[in-house]
Amino acid sequence: MMEIISENLCFGGVQRVYSHESRTCSGSMRLGVYLPPACDHSTAPVLLWLSGLTCTEQNFITKAGAQRVAAELGMVLVAPDTSPRGDGTPDAPDEAYDLGLGAGFYVDATESPWAQRYRMYSYIADELPQILSETLGLNTKKMGISGHSMGGHGALIMHLKNPGLFQTVSAFAPIVAPMQVPWGKKAFQAYLGADQKAWADYDATALVMQNKSTAHILIDQGGADAFLEEQLKPHLFEAACEKAGQALTLRIQPGYDHSYYFIASFIEDHLRHHASGLS
Amino acid sequence: MMEIISENLCFGGVQRVYSHESRTCSGSMRLGVYLPPACDHSTAPVLLWLSGLTCTEQNFITKAGAQRVAAELGMVLVAPDTSPRGDGTPDAPDEAYDLGLGAGFYVDATESPWAQRYRMYSYIADELPQILSETLGLNTKKMGISGHSMGGHGALIMHLKNPGLFQTVSAFAPIVAPMQVPWGKKAFQAYLGADQKAWADYDATALVMQNKSTAHILIDQGGADAFLEEQLKPHLFEAACEKAGQALTLRIQPGYDHSYYFIASFIEDHLRHHASGLS
Repeated sequence: MMEIISENLCFGGVQRVYSHESRTCSGSMRLGVYLPPACDHSTAPVLLWLSGLTCTEQNFITKAGAQRVAAELGMVLVAPDTSPRGDGTPDAPDEAYDLGLGAGFYVDATESPWAQRYRMYSYIADELPQILSETLGLNTKKMGISGHSMGGHGALIMHLKNPGLFQTVSAFAPIVAPMQVPWGKKAFQAYLGADQKAWADYDATALVMQNKSTAHILIDQGGADAFLEEQLKPHLFEAACEKAGQALTLRIQPGYDHSYYFIASFIEDHLRHHASGLS
Repeated sequence: MMEIISENLCFGGVQRVYSHESRTCSGSMRLGVYLPPACDHSTAPVLLWLSGLTCTEQNFITKAGAQRVAAELGMVLVAPDTSPRGDGTPDAPDEAYDLGLGAGFYVDATESPWAQRYRMYSYIADELPQILSETLGLNTKKMGISGHSMGGHGALIMHLKNPGLFQTVSAFAPIVAPMQVPWGKKAFQAYLGADQKAWADYDATALVMQNKSTAHILIDQGGADAFLEEQLKPHLFEAACEKAGQALTLRIQPGYDHSYYFIASFIEDHLRHHASGLS
């Protein structure tokens, strides 16, 4: 049962926000869906967008300006929330922005108190495509995935682990090597426990060495991003892709930061990258 | 003294937020300024954007997607806050959204407790152009004005009262006849007192009968806007323009509401309207 929370006409199409009960996350989840005008939604390609730390489904749909391009290309946009929410959902004891609410990291947690609800990996890879197809009647046979920061990490691992499901991939300022940076270490320790063997299954730089795909990965990274050196380290992924033979275009955009001003500036290139790969 | 609060690269240009001490409003004011790339900012045309109730300088700069078009056209965008703010600024006793903070209505208040700080008319028409020209080195000889809802009202009256200063004008879902609708009556009663003669000087539908301009006014109005019938009433302005011989294009956009999804969908048309009129 998908409840429509809001519905706004936008560039001739419809931007909706749904709420639904997720069996995977044991609670209600929110979801932005943009349906472009003048095309058959049962055959249009679908792009999933995974947002970053602190975000909800709102950030992408209000700030990225992606609907304009999606309307032109006839592409459906799907933007889920970044974690489970609501009564009884565990959060970091200090309400830290980088763990718990707003910080699901797109993994299936195995540790207490997270394991029951923090199952964003299975939510995105299993439950969501089923909802899109069976309940909303969308074409999950042509799906791409993209995202920002923590969501860029999510997009990369979702693609590398499910290249047949998410056939095209791109990312803005992704956390490419969570096992090697503070944000990822903190989250993986909490959600997955101390054994780093479990971490590698959610680390794009580790995964690409075993699971390279036939897709061409597009990454945009702001050259003036305050998180570049400590948390993002795109060159670790670039080196792994080179070693593995994975096709990658990594663009360092001089002067751009980590904000949606950066995303808005280059989102059109990303939508066209997906449209081209899914056509 | 203009303090830079934030600075983000966006579509090759720079989106800044400034804070400055306003002599007109007796306190600090915030201001969004977008400087497009690859053009001389001392000669580029300038578009002022006036936001609506509850907004700050942030809404337009984060949600409208206007920087993309401004970058292409070589147009500077200036988005002030909608009221004075900060310590000691009077607010409505019940913190109502439609009076006081976030609801300056672009008038010079004459009544207590508003008269000292709520002087948004003079701030926009006098102090701001001087700052843009003298402090920021912008070209205030080529200026247009636009806005949304309460800010659409502001844009219309600013133009009609200062057609040489704001040479082009457009609006989204403007309050065209504040004297005749609940939002306007409440605000004008509070800021200007009971004598309705003072109100007429800030009412676009009244003003256009005396002060028609040689500009062509562009208005977009969502056909599914929840405020259309009670607060906006664009046909009152349309009738006055017809009587006065004022050139007006009023477009009712079927299905669109009062949100920034509506603004984002048509902002490009408005920027081109101003660029064409200011060229």
